[in-house]
Amino acid sequence: MMTGEEYRQSIRDGRATYYKGKRIDDITLEPEMSSVVDLVAAGYDRWYDPDAARHPLMSPPRSVEEMRERIPVFETLDVMTDASYQSFSTLVTAAGRLRADNPDIADRILAYVDSAQAKDIRITECITDSKGDRSLKPSAQVDPDQYLHVVDRQADGVVVRGAKLHITGASFGHDLMAIPTKRMRPGEDEYSIACMVPVNSPGVKIVNVGFPPKTDDPRDQPATWAHNMFDGFVIFDDVFVPNERILLDGKPELAAIFAHSLGLWERLGGVTYMADQADEVVGLALLIAEANGLAKISHVREKIDELAIHATMLRAGLEAAVTNAHSTPEGYFYPDELYTNAAKYQGATMYGTMIRHLLDIAGGSVFTVPAMADFDNPDVGDNLRKYMATGNASPDGLYRARLFATIRNLTSDDFGGWRLVAMLQSGGGLFAQRIVARGKYDFEAARHRGLKAAGLLEGDH
Amino acid sequence: MMTGEEYRQSIRDGRATYYKGKRIDDITLEPEMSSVVDLVAAGYDRWYDPDAARHPLMSPPRSVEEMRERIPVFETLDVMTDASYQSFSTLVTAAGRLRADNPDIADRILAYVDSAQAKDIRITECITDSKGDRSLKPSAQVDPDQYLHVVDRQADGVVVRGAKLHITGASFGHDLMAIPTKRMRPGEDEYSIACMVPVNSPGVKIVNVGFPPKTDDPRDQPATWAHNMFDGFVIFDDVFVPNERILLDGKPELAAIFAHSLGLWERLGGVTYMADQADEVVGLALLIAEANGLAKISHVREKIDELAIHATMLRAGLEAAVTNAHSTPEGYFYPDELYTNAAKYQGATMYGTMIRHLLDIAGGSVFTVPAMADFDNPDVGDNLRKYMATGNASPDGLYRARLFATIRNLTSDDFGGWRLVAMLQSGGGLFAQRIVARGKYDFEAARHRGLKAAGLLEGDH
Amino acid sequence: MMTGEEYRQSIRDGRATYYKGKRIDDITLEPEMSSVVDLVAAGYDRWYDPDAARHPLMSPPRSVEEMRERIPVFETLDVMTDASYQSFSTLVTAAGRLRADNPDIADRILAYVDSAQAKDIRITECITDSKGDRSLKPSAQVDPDQYLHVVDRQADGVVVRGAKLHITGASFGHDLMAIPTKRMRPGEDEYSIACMVPVNSPGVKIVNVGFPPKTDDPRDQPATWAHNMFDGFVIFDDVFVPNERILLDGKPELAAIFAHSLGLWERLGGVTYMADQADEVVGLALLIAEANGLAKISHVREKIDELAIHATMLRAGLEAAVTNAHSTPEGYFYPDELYTNAAKYQGATMYGTMIRHLLDIAGGSVFTVPAMADFDNPDVGDNLRKYMATGNASPDGLYRARLFATIRNLTSDDFGGWRLVAMLQSGGGLFAQRIVARGKYDFEAARHRGLKAAGLLEGDH
Amino acid sequence: MMTGEEYRQSIRDGRATYYKGKRIDDITLEPEMSSVVDLVAAGYDRWYDPDAARHPLMSPPRSVEEMRERIPVFETLDVMTDASYQSFSTLVTAAGRLRADNPDIADRILAYVDSAQAKDIRITECITDSKGDRSLKPSAQVDPDQYLHVVDRQADGVVVRGAKLHITGASFGHDLMAIPTKRMRPGEDEYSIACMVPVNSPGVKIVNVGFPPKTDDPRDQPATWAHNMFDGFVIFDDVFVPNERILLDGKPELAAIFAHSLGLWERLGGVTYMADQADEVVGLALLIAEANGLAKISHVREKIDELAIHATMLRAGLEAAVTNAHSTPEGYFYPDELYTNAAKYQGATMYGTMIRHLLDIAGGSVFTVPAMADFDNPDVGDNLRKYMATGNASPDGLYRARLFATIRNLTSDDFGGWRLVAMLQSGGGLFAQRIVARGKYDFEAARHRGLKAAGLLEGDH
Repeated sequence: MMTGEEYRQSIRDGRATYYKGKRIDDITLEPEMSSVVDLVAAGYDRWYDPDAARHPLMSPPRSVEEMRERIPVFETLDVMTDASYQSFSTLVTAAGRLRADNPDIADRILAYVDSAQAKDIRITECITDSKGDRSLKPSAQVDPDQYLHVVDRQADGVVVRGAKLHITGASFGHDLMAIPTKRMRPGEDEYSIACMVPVNSPGVKIVNVGFPPKTDDPRDQPATWAHNMFDGFVIFDDVFVPNERILLDGKPELAAIFAHSLGLWERLGGVTYMADQADEVVGLALLIAEANGLAKISHVREKIDELAIHATMLRAGLEAAVTNAHSTPEGYFYPDELYTNAAKYQGATMYGTMIRHLLDIAGGSVFTVPAMADFDNPDVGDNLRKYMATGNASPDGLYRARLFATIRNLTSDDFGGWRLVAMLQSGGGLFAQRIVARGKYDFEAARHRGLKAAGLLEGDH
Repeated sequence: MMTGEEYRQSIRDGRATYYKGKRIDDITLEPEMSSVVDLVAAGYDRWYDPDAARHPLMSPPRSVEEMRERIPVFETLDVMTDASYQSFSTLVTAAGRLRADNPDIADRILAYVDSAQAKDIRITECITDSKGDRSLKPSAQVDPDQYLHVVDRQADGVVVRGAKLHITGASFGHDLMAIPTKRMRPGEDEYSIACMVPVNSPGVKIVNVGFPPKTDDPRDQPATWAHNMFDGFVIFDDVFVPNERILLDGKPELAAIFAHSLGLWERLGGVTYMADQADEVVGLALLIAEANGLAKISHVREKIDELAIHATMLRAGLEAAVTNAHSTPEGYFYPDELYTNAAKYQGATMYGTMIRHLLDIAGGSVFTVPAMADFDNPDVGDNLRKYMATGNASPDGLYRARLFATIRNLTSDDFGGWRLVAMLQSGGGLFAQRIVARGKYDFEAARHRGLKAAGLLEGDH
Repeated sequence: MMTGEEYRQSIRDGRATYYKGKRIDDITLEPEMSSVVDLVAAGYDRWYDPDAARHPLMSPPRSVEEMRERIPVFETLDVMTDASYQSFSTLVTAAGRLRADNPDIADRILAYVDSAQAKDIRITECITDSKGDRSLKPSAQVDPDQYLHVVDRQADGVVVRGAKLHITGASFGHDLMAIPTKRMRPGEDEYSIACMVPVNSPGVKIVNVGFPPKTDDPRDQPATWAHNMFDGFVIFDDVFVPNERILLDGKPELAAIFAHSLGLWERLGGVTYMADQADEVVGLALLIAEANGLAKISHVREKIDELAIHATMLRAGLEAAVTNAHSTPEGYFYPDELYTNAAKYQGATMYGTMIRHLLDIAGGSVFTVPAMADFDNPDVGDNLRKYMATGNASPDGLYRARLFATIRNLTSDDFGGWRLVAMLQSGGGLFAQRIVARGKYDFEAARHRGLKAAGLLEGDH
Repeated sequence: MMTGEEYRQSIRDGRATYYKGKRIDDITLEPEMSSVVDLVAAGYDRWYDPDAARHPLMSPPRSVEEMRERIPVFETLDVMTDASYQSFSTLVTAAGRLRADNPDIADRILAYVDSAQAKDIRITECITDSKGDRSLKPSAQVDPDQYLHVVDRQADGVVVRGAKLHITGASFGHDLMAIPTKRMRPGEDEYSIACMVPVNSPGVKIVNVGFPPKTDDPRDQPATWAHNMFDGFVIFDDVFVPNERILLDGKPELAAIFAHSLGLWERLGGVTYMADQADEVVGLALLIAEANGLAKISHVREKIDELAIHATMLRAGLEAAVTNAHSTPEGYFYPDELYTNAAKYQGATMYGTMIRHLLDIAGGSVFTVPAMADFDNPDVGDNLRKYMATGNASPDGLYRARLFATIRNLTSDDFGGWRLVAMLQSGGGLFAQRIVARGKYDFEAARHRGLKAAGLLEGDH
């Protein structure tokens, strides 16, 4: 296993990283990016155990109980560990689905997993292609590079070209798990490529987008400080991939298996995050209602109840997904797709309404609460504390101000905006979840019920 | 156990039943009510087993697995068997909650349960009082009789007065389980009465409301024919209750235990019904979309997906309620209250939107499809079949017409209206479910999350 | 002008009317249908003026002010007068749109309008064809008769075949305004037929669907008694139409003008009805909240506020549609299509939620309130009154019971179901309104705003 | 009238302004604040006319037509001019309402308005007090300063203490219009103070919150650059107000008139802004759908239709508010309160759903689109352009990237968050609008309708 310090060293490997228009030679030294490196390094140190050969979470669960036990752990992970868990789970789930008809591919995948676990590296998924015109399939694009594809074949590997978008943490991990973003059709063999690409491979260029803290004071944006991360726009500018790092090459009918496996684990992660976050919203709504002196007002109380019921329904979706988990031939468990997707859809659809309730309860100070530095300024600090206090409800004005700042951070500044978009788009948008739910829901049973209700089943008079 | 015929005999007992302004001396002979008697009698015959001592469902489950196995059975029960199951479960759950501090009451309850099981009788819950002015508590009403209460005490029993509303099947069962509708306060001892009252007790008068089939042809209203039932307005006009039939008398602090137990089981029944019915709505939406030739239209397909996701979320709520069931000291299992209430709330809140989707897909013929008798009329029957047919999508116009009639019956005539109201009000309205959810949701954990997010937990800097 | 009695005579004309499987020779004598005849006859008598040549409403308004003044009058009309107003307005609006390029058709339409006004007859629109497979156009159906079309041409007229569905009042009027249900394509000349067909024309057969009162007591279903009406399934079984009654024949490019004109007036009628009815729902919610003693409870009060805001938004849509009305070349005014369709869409979308609020406030007695005859029964009437009373909030139990019965009638029985479907489907379903709104909304202006926001307008740097 | 340059000079007056923990001596020199000064100065120059005595918008309209004509102008105003328009309108409307019973106050208000117009100064409203415990009235607070109040009286004026929150532009105007935030009760005379306070009065301290652009490139955040503004936390630390600047002093029964007048104009401004912004959202949704190649996908098209219908309903609310405007005794027009508040409520309630539609259509690049500087970087700029292009749908990748950046700016970064909160809270939260709608809706007419529907009007049988 790696320590945090070893991790720092490991990413000083010449990777081509860009941010705000400039190439960053060493992200551990770039002021805004280095704080993220610190978070990941702390994640390594947290789990480091000199006596253990493997990270305990870098493999999917072996039973329903193990899946259930891990849920509260997710919440405490740094983003890179979380992402790697999803990548490993994706690979193992895909291997299970390929086992029967393509045992060689399944073995190759598990061999890679084993070696990566041994090295304790972090893996980011690279699924979403740039896609070009969304109404056209990959091979019909004006620019053939809009989906990652093989552009050259050599004895010891292939050369790929394309771009992968929205890659959280791309510049902070070791391997890029590049997989087809959707099913391919006959003739799209060159697009049916899945491979594990080291971040520092020549030709890989990562353009970062991030929203680092605006001030030096963590109280202004506690969530930003705790969860700060960069998304990468990953360019594969004719990147050579050696044969041993190729998982799939040229079987269009298998291309979607990776995306489906990833989608499932991403959405399980999404539902887990949504359920936790819904409980957090309940808590913040309650705290700010109390601090405002409004906790007993009927319409406030009612909104908090609705938040709690919403959180409970997401938790129920998670419960049902886990309770009805399925097993691969190798004995790895993956959650039920129908419940996972339905819960993700519910969470994404209702997110805006829940945030509206929270903001409605909190009031305008969510946006206009001054910076913490103003509270420290002797000229006005006492005034601010005095006027942010609410008698017995919140004698300490700073306490209430920090609740406002936290709610702003979680709902209304860059971080809140990132979360709003992530709720909708992570693991695919509403449409993607509807499609999976459509594929898994038992419409035949429903049709049978409908015919029965109408007295139109065979045998009815 | 009783046979259907024995059941018929058993309710010819002089009970005072009213309907449409008239007293009905024998409901087995009243044309509109007798068809309901037939349904209940068939329910008896279905389960009758000369070798069995007890009905297998007249007692709550003994494990999570048993609870889960019973769920699909509920859907197939006649209303009286379903209602009795809920009543027995209520009693046993209440006994479990009373066991520690009031073992004598718990024993009395279980003794009654045992004797009622042995007689294989049907029990209807009588909870909702007339309530008078809802802003005043029972003892503060202008008319003291607005909540059932003891008006006289005799050596061998008590005399009660009041009225219980919305009592489904009251005229068709044997015993009325009269329990306080809510918690009582100190001094409301006379209102803290729970007792089992035979339907034919002197002073019991039941005014029925029902919406029997409009035509002789079950194809016009298949749900009405299958699930027809009457609701009773039950008047207790100074009814004597012997001591051995009194479960609770004069302990205001215990009054709410029965209502809470009943509410839980009613809502579990409600969630089960909602989940099944949501699947049925999916099926009907699919069938009518296909018969209209619209199954591949995107916005239709999308609405069906939303119906399926909604059905899945209700099923997830049910799954979570059962998976997290709890046990009484006697080993009877009852579902988790938080999940049950949250799912019931979700189902009730979304019901109208789901029905709108179904009606939007189906089109105006839901309301204007002619009577089946017109399809049998040689003057116009062929015309109707011809113009209700949709080429290859539904070559048989009658098939499509029956789907329309079924959807009308389930959504837009008396039965549909009953269901609309029942979805909202059975087991208590939205407010009632919100209150229970409020009581069971872990707000302390949520508050802890909120403080943690804000960096305001003790120990945070 | 005609009197009510003259109207009665005028419909005893041999028309082929069917109901519940039987041919009805004289609808003025059929018990369930005759009450509707009474309503229409009363409508005639209300407006009859021996000194007036024409009914004052049988022509569209001549100014914005006149359009505004008529809005409160609509609500007081019987259904046949209302339907005829819409038909006359449709014809005059269509004439205006045809004026420039087809003055002969415009003249023919206005000549018919003049003669029909002179005879003071009632006209029902016949627009919705049976349609067969909705995914195929008229001329591509397996059965060519699924859209009304010309099947024979003679010197003095044409013979048409097909069926028109959901024709409110078809059996109660004089002329059927048969118009194409949508735009036709080149080659669909025979489907491009619009004509005015007397109800008693040989080959016309009308199968009625109605939901007459269930009891003899109007208090049980006041809305049913006031607004009772039958919908007709109108079969054109090779009906001869003389040349002078043909408005359009064989110009596919003009076929949609009638449907668009009708849709506009139907939706204006729909919005007017929705706005009035939304105010009525506010009133009933307030009355039943008061009678329940709940008028001051916060969540009840809040729901009533939401109902009032919803009603106000529908009224705003109506205001905007009228304020922005347009004029035909002949000086007839028609409402703005965008506002009309947007408001109709809003009303249809929100209807279920508004009804949920009303039912949530009212409680379960909406469905279980006994028949008024039970209140008259000396055995139980006093009991019912006593237990339906709510102290000072509603000392008279019968008053409260009648409110419940009214709410049931408007939301949860056949009439309520009819209204639920009508809200969605009258004037076309949600999709139809979306399409019209799409056609009328100024997307170019919106696009300009978008480009401006992005700094991408020509001239921006 | 003032020029932009004169404006700059006018605010170098020693005002006590704070930002990010520091006192700012001259805001025209502070880098982040000076760009706002530029916007306001440009607003002055735009309207400056050496021949005109008065700014044409600094007075409310004199007719419905004038009110209607001004609506499209609002959108083009800088925030300070817009705010001042609302302040002047508030004062004149309040004067009209005070005219009958308090002509002296009305005259004093109009005299101030006249002098302020002559000086062409900018006025910010200061309404929202710090409020302390919201469940207690002003005089019952633990800290009596939680609502602005008079703490000392002198011959030539009064001394006030308190704080006003969420004061947009407070540091950038000339006078603070301090008015009671709500109605006061008997005995709260000292809280019933309305006065016009110069920003540089001793004791006034303003703590600013702002979210200035993150980069030097306006393409990254075009809305931030165009509409950048600071909100002020305004502290009145024993501020002397001379008699001639006091509008109201010590009449609790009149205290709410100012707030009501302001609320009305703020909400009219809000509805106008919401309607314009809804059209802008339609445009952006259309543009990004087209650029993604998704404009013809049914579910995308449907969401755009819903956005358009929503925008139309807000416009209808605005239309109805203006068409039904009312006049003060002095002939100034103010919009209808019921329509204004209902439309504001609708806009605030639906805002989140509309943004969800936009983000759902746009996709994840809303958040992960790189900075414009990366597009200018020769290392990766061509790659980014290539992979942001979408063939014929958007041949220019930069064009599409700028649309994403704009949508991020409007919905998901600080500016988007500010707008989310502002939509809910400006002019008061949902509750405030509900209360005004409650006060203005004609419940008596609704009640009459309800009674009529039930046949319970006097005279009914």
